[in-house]
Amino acid sequence: MRSPHYDILFEPVRIGPVTAKNRFYQVPHCNGMGHRAPSGMAAMRRVKAEGGWAVVCTEVCEIHPSADISPHAEARLWDDADIPALARAADGIHQFGALAGVELGHHGFRAQNRTSREIPMGPSSHTAVSYDPVQSRVMDKEDIRNLRRWHKAAALRAKRAGFDIIYVYAAHGLVTPMQFLSKRYNQRTDEYGGALENRVRLLRELIEETKDAVGDTCAVPVRICVDELIGPAGLCADGEGREVIEMLADLPDLWDLTVGDWSNDSRPSRFGEEGVHEEYVSFVKKVTGKPVVGNGRFTSPDTMVSQVRRGVLDFIGAARPSIADPFLPRKVEEGRPGEIRECIGCNICAAADNTYTPIRCTQNPTMGEEWRRGWHPEYIPERESDDQVLIIGAGPAGLECAVSLGKRGYDVMLAEASEELGGRSAREPRLPGLAIWGRVREYRVEQLNLLPNVQVYLASAMSAQDVLDTGANRIVIATGSHWRRDGVARYHRAPIANLDQSSIFTPDDVMDGKQIAGPVVVYDDDHYYMGGVIAEKLRLQGLDVTLVTPAPLASAWTVNTLEQTRIQRRLLEIGVKICTNEALVGFAGGEAAIACAFTGSTRSLPANAVVMVTARLSNDSLHADLLARTSEWADAGIKTVERIGDAVAPGTIAAATFSGHRYAREIDRAPWGDEVPFLRENAELGPWQSKLVNNGTS
Amino acid sequence: MRSPHYDILFEPVRIGPVTAKNRFYQVPHCNGMGHRAPSGMAAMRRVKAEGGWAVVCTEVCEIHPSADISPHAEARLWDDADIPALARAADGIHQFGALAGVELGHHGFRAQNRTSREIPMGPSSHTAVSYDPVQSRVMDKEDIRNLRRWHKAAALRAKRAGFDIIYVYAAHGLVTPMQFLSKRYNQRTDEYGGALENRVRLLRELIEETKDAVGDTCAVPVRICVDELIGPAGLCADGEGREVIEMLADLPDLWDLTVGDWSNDSRPSRFGEEGVHEEYVSFVKKVTGKPVVGNGRFTSPDTMVSQVRRGVLDFIGAARPSIADPFLPRKVEEGRPGEIRECIGCNICAAADNTYTPIRCTQNPTMGEEWRRGWHPEYIPERESDDQVLIIGAGPAGLECAVSLGKRGYDVMLAEASEELGGRSAREPRLPGLAIWGRVREYRVEQLNLLPNVQVYLASAMSAQDVLDTGANRIVIATGSHWRRDGVARYHRAPIANLDQSSIFTPDDVMDGKQIAGPVVVYDDDHYYMGGVIAEKLRLQGLDVTLVTPAPLASAWTVNTLEQTRIQRRLLEIGVKICTNEALVGFAGGEAAIACAFTGSTRSLPANAVVMVTARLSNDSLHADLLARTSEWADAGIKTVERIGDAVAPGTIAAATFSGHRYAREIDRAPWGDEVPFLRENAELGPWQSKLVNNGTS
Repeated sequence: MRSPHYDILFEPVRIGPVTAKNRFYQVPHCNGMGHRAPSGMAAMRRVKAEGGWAVVCTEVCEIHPSADISPHAEARLWDDADIPALARAADGIHQFGALAGVELGHHGFRAQNRTSREIPMGPSSHTAVSYDPVQSRVMDKEDIRNLRRWHKAAALRAKRAGFDIIYVYAAHGLVTPMQFLSKRYNQRTDEYGGALENRVRLLRELIEETKDAVGDTCAVPVRICVDELIGPAGLCADGEGREVIEMLADLPDLWDLTVGDWSNDSRPSRFGEEGVHEEYVSFVKKVTGKPVVGNGRFTSPDTMVSQVRRGVLDFIGAARPSIADPFLPRKVEEGRPGEIRECIGCNICAAADNTYTPIRCTQNPTMGEEWRRGWHPEYIPERESDDQVLIIGAGPAGLECAVSLGKRGYDVMLAEASEELGGRSAREPRLPGLAIWGRVREYRVEQLNLLPNVQVYLASAMSAQDVLDTGANRIVIATGSHWRRDGVARYHRAPIANLDQSSIFTPDDVMDGKQIAGPVVVYDDDHYYMGGVIAEKLRLQGLDVTLVTPAPLASAWTVNTLEQTRIQRRLLEIGVKICTNEALVGFAGGEAAIACAFTGSTRSLPANAVVMVTARLSNDSLHADLLARTSEWADAGIKTVERIGDAVAPGTIAAATFSGHRYAREIDRAPWGDEVPFLRENAELGPWQSKLVNNGTS
Repeated sequence: MRSPHYDILFEPVRIGPVTAKNRFYQVPHCNGMGHRAPSGMAAMRRVKAEGGWAVVCTEVCEIHPSADISPHAEARLWDDADIPALARAADGIHQFGALAGVELGHHGFRAQNRTSREIPMGPSSHTAVSYDPVQSRVMDKEDIRNLRRWHKAAALRAKRAGFDIIYVYAAHGLVTPMQFLSKRYNQRTDEYGGALENRVRLLRELIEETKDAVGDTCAVPVRICVDELIGPAGLCADGEGREVIEMLADLPDLWDLTVGDWSNDSRPSRFGEEGVHEEYVSFVKKVTGKPVVGNGRFTSPDTMVSQVRRGVLDFIGAARPSIADPFLPRKVEEGRPGEIRECIGCNICAAADNTYTPIRCTQNPTMGEEWRRGWHPEYIPERESDDQVLIIGAGPAGLECAVSLGKRGYDVMLAEASEELGGRSAREPRLPGLAIWGRVREYRVEQLNLLPNVQVYLASAMSAQDVLDTGANRIVIATGSHWRRDGVARYHRAPIANLDQSSIFTPDDVMDGKQIAGPVVVYDDDHYYMGGVIAEKLRLQGLDVTLVTPAPLASAWTVNTLEQTRIQRRLLEIGVKICTNEALVGFAGGEAAIACAFTGSTRSLPANAVVMVTARLSNDSLHADLLARTSEWADAGIKTVERIGDAVAPGTIAAATFSGHRYAREIDRAPWGDEVPFLRENAELGPWQSKLVNNGTS
């Protein structure tokens, strides 16, 4: 069925004592579930195995309470009590013939140990990387021996849990072996510090001891950072990064290659193309005979083939592409690569982990919902009625809803007021850096083309009367939202009194191409990507731009999507002025009044225009009009009128696709009423003394 | 036993159908355990009941997944599955004759629903208060009916769980009934909006319906915000805050009074005295016949008596004082009020909740450890050996260790190099705003006076030889730490190359009273309180002060202790200049070079001095000297040499007291080896299909 061009991707590859059935390799990735939602985590991994990945790994797995990175919900093998949860993941992965991998990790000075309260320890004394008031202590020889013993014990537990691939993890700056490797963290003077031969000692010992412990049946890869992107002050591909790999060459069973920290390894699409790491990792296959996996947001099978043919990688590593489409390998295998739901690199998945939240995905609304809602990314139950569905609005919610209902076999009419499908997924990708986000629209439009039971009507604005006239039984309002112009968001809960509306614009106006004269103040009280994007666009048009925000950072919430540092750097480099901790409080007569968020003291900035990036308002007039005519619904054949996506409440694109998908899943079930609409993973009650034990005399 | 002066505090007080045995009332407070660590939460509440509080409440309890404030770990009564966890808390509280209270809450637009993914809803459409890209939808009449039904269902579950007191919660801006009450959030035009009579409607309905449901046996209090501290734009004590209480007067069984948001209600001691809320709440008893509870970091029994006698409050509400000393009431009752371990108002407890971490306390190292480590705040096992213990250093770790070992009956020598006890707990309280923190020292010094088996030696610096000469069997090094002068912390992991050390100072120098000439740059790469405090002190001395920090906020970590906004406001108001997102990169010739944390571009500031508030270094030379003489230990009678507190790794004062206490608890047990040193509360594994169910055709 598949194109022979892709055959090379389906060759089996040996990794130490085990063999991967093809070259698709889901590298370890966080997911906000981990030890806190083990059934959810396991089911999510299982779906990837079902989707054809030859190797499916867990997130990082803490080996000991001295390296606790809570509240991040990662895997744990602190002791035997953790085995059942991880065995469930391995079991799920094995059900579809994939190899199960686990990434053992000890977080060294990066562990804040918020839960365990142990003192973090690392090669040297360091402050936390976060602002936590925590410093690490210097590991002595006994600490190093302990760490090695814990790692071995965790490897043995992982083997008992059923894993085939047991990592030594030395990447992202996060973990002790890498902290020993890198000059910037290792200031030791003993045989574990100084020359690289010394700094590599711990990593070498861990590899050897892990192989001794489990290497008879399990592969032992190393995940390593080949370049810290700080030049010779750290590991670098033409320096110590290369030398480490040369020293250890064939010792691990596989090299899993990363570049920089997590924000670079999972580079947002605004700041990096598919395959962005090639220049740093391409040397590795020249210095080792062991297989090599690397990532780079690979979504194109042609790029993957090229990586293998050109000898860059043996395995196509993927975290985000496997989240957006767990069935990516099977779609290639079955000759339908055009159906791949491509990752858009928005990093909303990373934001879940960073906000201690179960994973979600803009493109794949079933991500994280496999166990608790029983949702599958590729299968959806057949329709349970002959209801005809009218969806008004073809933005991300409407499109996802139409595709999902269409797959269920419902007759669907999709009415879009404008001349193009996509809504914000068509408009926003025309803004700087967001082109790849257009895949939200593209994937769904291509899916619609495969669904003869979905009729699409463009340039079809609908009034309430129009809706009543269609004869549809289920009305879905997906009319989106628009940006407010009155300043209301977080700082102002009521409209700003003193605003010269004639020179106020919104992101909608900017996307509509309205002419704006500078100097312009972009007022961002939204804090996700839009404020920074609008400032960038206007500045690139040559305007004098000042970004004003009550937050302490530009695009503050994007710290969670690993974008913030790059956004603020880019804005500063192109000449956008940034005023943080200040709020717009008035705009008239060519001056914007701004107030200090702490003291309220005001100053003014010259401004011919203000762009308000604040709250949004749902486009809900059609919904209101229909509610006013409820008495006519029965005669018109209408059973229900519901809103989805931004038309209910403005949110992320991920929230919109989730909303549209959920509607399609739940159209023919009774409302949830007072039930919790998903399975839960509660804390187990531990032993309890009905009478208090005082541990001493009272 | 107790002074008759305090008798009034031990009068029983009726609350609707139940009676509190005295006036000590632990109001609801978060604890970072909640539904995620239910046994831990229950045991912590039980200890408070044991300590004599007549009423012990849970944290806020989410009534429905539409108001999920995860990752904050609060209580939950989403459905019946949550009853056992809360029943455990009620059971523990009842064991000591206290009334168990639960604070039912629905968080309206403040719920981000990160876990449930429901669309938040509130009186009007609002953005989240956090930067989460989430907006609420407007509640329609059905939503309001649903909310009322959910509240009633949760109340019935709470009753089944065994609670005696079931709250309607309308405070802190956090919850839906308050969001309906306040003009700034409620922009409705129906009978739930507009005039106050309308805005109070939901609260009234909830009180009435909760009383109908459970009022036969359970008291139904209302926790309310009497003043939002934004004048007539919100609830205020001489406006709508008073009017609400007048309207509802005797409808609830008790009024639980709060002022402002959480950061004001739990006002840090740097910014408010004991009883700070009196001016706002004193009117309430004049307009209701029902009992009234209010808080205000009450730790003095005399202040408490005054509050009751003057008719301000009927119950002495406490969250933080009950955390610092769960046995506060019993200590008053037993005539030993001088033994109260007084809250210092540092809010490290709040920081735990804000960092999604089990609660801890600077003063009470057993807080949060009652269940998982079996630690009790007042009882500690008797000594298991005749070992003599030498503690070197009488800072918070050394003092706590000496007191706890002393209570166990060990013979302890406490050697302090300086002429006063306390270490940083003596020095730092002399800095602006930190006076109350001196209670860490005071409490322990007073305890030492009760312990004849602890010998204290002042002005007794100890060399390794001195230690060997004492004949002690257990050596505890608690020598603290000092601030670095080389710039190393987060931004710089290695010393800054270009530093004129002759004009560089540290917080230690400032506390030592060294003369510093301005203009001065305070470089803060520590991010807890010290940078802001030093800047404040120097500015109050009249110097020109610029605070430079790579963080986006001054004292950035204090967002967690509810201090940050007030710190930055105070610094700005007294004229400290604040440069955020910039790092010191050099200092010579009267100029400090600072670099943009995003672009690296540099500029210079005039500076005659730089105060480095960066990392600290443990004072570990004595430890090193002793390790070099291990061979002599046996002859000297030494069994172990251990470090505690900042001498292991610099951290918070809370970490130091915990460290000292832990040493005292664990001195006579074998090292933990590879065991996890506490009981865990893991997620229960849910149902699992050994074969995948696809919910549809494949």
